Order: sequence, then structure tokens, then C-alpha cells
Amino acid sequence: MRLRLTEAILSDNDAAAAANREAVTQAGITMLNMMGSPGSGKTSVIEQLVSRQDAGGFAVIEGDIATDRDAARVRAAGAPAIQINTDGACHLAAKQVARALSELPLQQLRLVLIENVGNLVCPTSFDLGELGKVVVTSVPEGDEKPEKYPGAFRKACAVVLNKMDLLPHVRFDLGAFRASCRDINPSAPLFEVSCQTGEGIEELLAWMLSLRPATG
Amino acid sequence: MRLRLTEAILSDNDAAAAANREAVTQAGITMLNMMGSPGSGKTSVIEQLVSRQDAGGFAVIEGDIATDRDAARVRAAGAPAIQINTDGACHLAAKQVARALSELPLQQLRLVLIENVGNLVCPTSFDLGELGKVVVTSVPEGDEKPEKYPGAFRKACAVVLNKMDLLPHVRFDLGAFRASCRDINPSAPLFEVSCQTGEGIEELLAWMLSLRPATG
Repeated sequence: MRLRLTEAILSDNDAAAAANREAVTQAGITMLNMMGSPGSGKTSVIEQLVSRQDAGGFAVIEGDIATDRDAARVRAAGAPAIQINTDGACHLAAKQVARALSELPLQQLRLVLIENVGNLVCPTSFDLGELGKVVVTSVPEGDEKPEKYPGAFRKACAVVLNKMDLLPHVRFDLGAFRASCRDINPSAPLFEVSCQTGEGIEELLAWMLSLRPATG
Repeated sequence: MRLRLTEAILSDNDAAAAANREAVTQAGITMLNMMGSPGSGKTSVIEQLVSRQDAGGFAVIEGDIATDRDAARVRAAGAPAIQINTDGACHLAAKQVARALSELPLQQLRLVLIENVGNLVCPTSFDLGELGKVVVTSVPEGDEKPEKYPGAFRKACAVVLNKMDLLPHVRFDLGAFRASCRDINPSAPLFEVSCQTGEGIEELLAWMLSLRPATG
């Protein structure tokens, strides 16, 4: 019974996710679902990307258990942002994203970034209608994260390693991290970035803008 | 129906947690449940505590989605460790801890540390039979974590702020962090520690050893 109910919840979510995917695909929008631990720097990476957009067309959907701090930060960086508070829930659900999408001017957008609740586990299991999931992890979290949280890394369409500026100050084997990412998910590109120095942000932005949703 | 099933799962867990609590209390053991984000340094803090124990009597129960790396690290530091792999689940459950306790020599122990799955959200809701929950967060995660994850901080009997050695290298307002902790949970002591310099570890160890389970 427990299994069947879980399946029902997931299938309900999948239907809402399919509708989200249809809406953004029809509008020619790339939508990405960014997930990572609390404090991995998801909002900082998004701020960097937003502040470097030339042509506009970015919007952000912020998922947090509490506060609207992250949406305020993204708006200050220059993009519209919708804040969702999950009131304790450990991941965003597709219906919440549907409501946020209904508040955005889809015809004027080309990229929607969803920042999921800080959690390297639960958001993995919930489709929001995105083109792909981007895992954000960071140097001080340690080089063994791909092995310890394989579900998140396996489902990712890209991996962002943030806080590269802290490499001199912590024990982190970059070669081992790269090898783990390759072993677990050989097709996902790895972007090594720093929001302090700007390292790697242009490359990440260029990759995001190169993704086009399949239409029709 | 969804709510009732959730209640049933929690109540099933609560029964197992009560049995765990009875077992460790009867044996005079302090059991703490350590929770925090992936990469906050829970295992490193435990290694530091274990390596400073004089009289012995420590054991560790390690919860991870995958790998037995953390148990191996704790054993190398000098304490028995039981590894639980949750195979994707985002938190430990009381029955898993019961099985681990059955493999430990309870009569020889005074402190059992449970390291939960790296997750600042889900472990908050599950009682494992511990005396209290200790939240481990770290400087590079940012000073706003108590406000953004209030559930975890509100339920904690203590907060550990790890990676104090990184303060010179990141933006982190220590005054603001301390004030948030005080606002959200005035009765929980805050330990500011570094596993690189050893700062604060003795104080944390002394506090843990000062806790005695109420017997009878």
C-alpha cells in the first residue's frame, strides 16, 4: 500500500511536470532544475549567470523552505524571480512550478532556472518539467560527493563544481572528483566555477544558452 | 489518506525510537543524532571527537545513501562504527538504528553518535531514540542557514558551526549567525569548531560527556 501510494503521488507529479514541459517547450524556453546541498552556492551561481546575460530573457523560480531572500537576491541581480516557500517540504513539486510559470511572461523568456530546495537527495526523484537537472556542489563539501550521493549525479545533465577559489584552503582532490563524475555520469559536462573570481561562469552560461528545447 | 499514512509511518518509527531510547538509557548511554548538509563535515567532527576520547566508550552509527567510507574513517580514528546504507533514502529510520545498536557492546559504551544522511531537512522529522539532535553546519555554507532551514535548528539541542578556519576566505557574518541561532533556538549551545586547527573540539566533547541520560 505504501508503494502504491508513493507511485500515485509520483504519477500525479509526473502529469503536472508533463504539462510544464509542454508549456515551456511551446514557448521555446530552456528550463533547468538546479539542485544541490544547502550552501553549495546555487543562488550565487544564478546571480552570476543573470548578471552576465546580454539579451535578457532570463527568469528564476526560487524554492525554499522559508524566507524570500533568494528571490530578492536574483531580482537585485537583474531577472524576474518567483519565490515558492515549501513550508518544510524537502523538494519542489511540479504543481508549484506550474503556478510560478503562470506568473511569468513566457513569450519573452528563453531561459528559466529553477532553484530547488537545498537538498542533494529528495529533489532527484521529482520531475518538474525541466529539460534537465543541474547538480551544484562545492569544493568545501569534499571530493567524495559523487560517490556518496550517486542518485543526484547520475540523473544530472551537467555538474557545477562551485567555490573553486577555496581549493588552496581545503583538502580536495580535483583529479579524484573529475574521475568520479566521469565514472558515474560520463555524458554530463563538468563546469568548475567560482562566484568570487568569475572563473567558469561564461562557459556555464554559454552551455545553458546552447541548449534548445525540442519543439513540436 | 495521504496524511493518515504519513502519521502511520511516523508512529511506527516512534515505537522503534522509544525502544532504542529505553535500551540506551538503561545502559547509561548518551546517544546523539548528528544531522547537517552533505559536506558540512559531520564525519570530520566525529573523527576529532573520537581521537580525543581518553577513557573510550564511544561508538558511531554511520548513515549514508551509499559507500562505507565514513565508517572506515571512524574506525581508523579509533571507535567501533556500524555503517547503514539507506540505498537512496534521505534519512535514517529508528529500526535501522535498532539493528545497529544490537551489534554494539552497549554495556561498555557511554556515548553513541549517530551520523545521519547528509540532509538538513528530512532527518528533522524522524526520532531515532536519541537524547537530542545536533545540527552541524559550516562557514562556507553561509550565515543565513538557520533562517532558511528553521526546522532543523529549532529541533536541535546544540549547534556546531564547523570550518571556522575558512572564515578569512569567505563572506560570513559571524555576529548575524550567532544572533539567528539565538533567535530560533535560545537554549541550544553553539560550538564554533575547526577540524583543521582543533578549535572548539574539546569544548564540544566536554559538553557531550556532561550529558547524562535520565534513568529509571
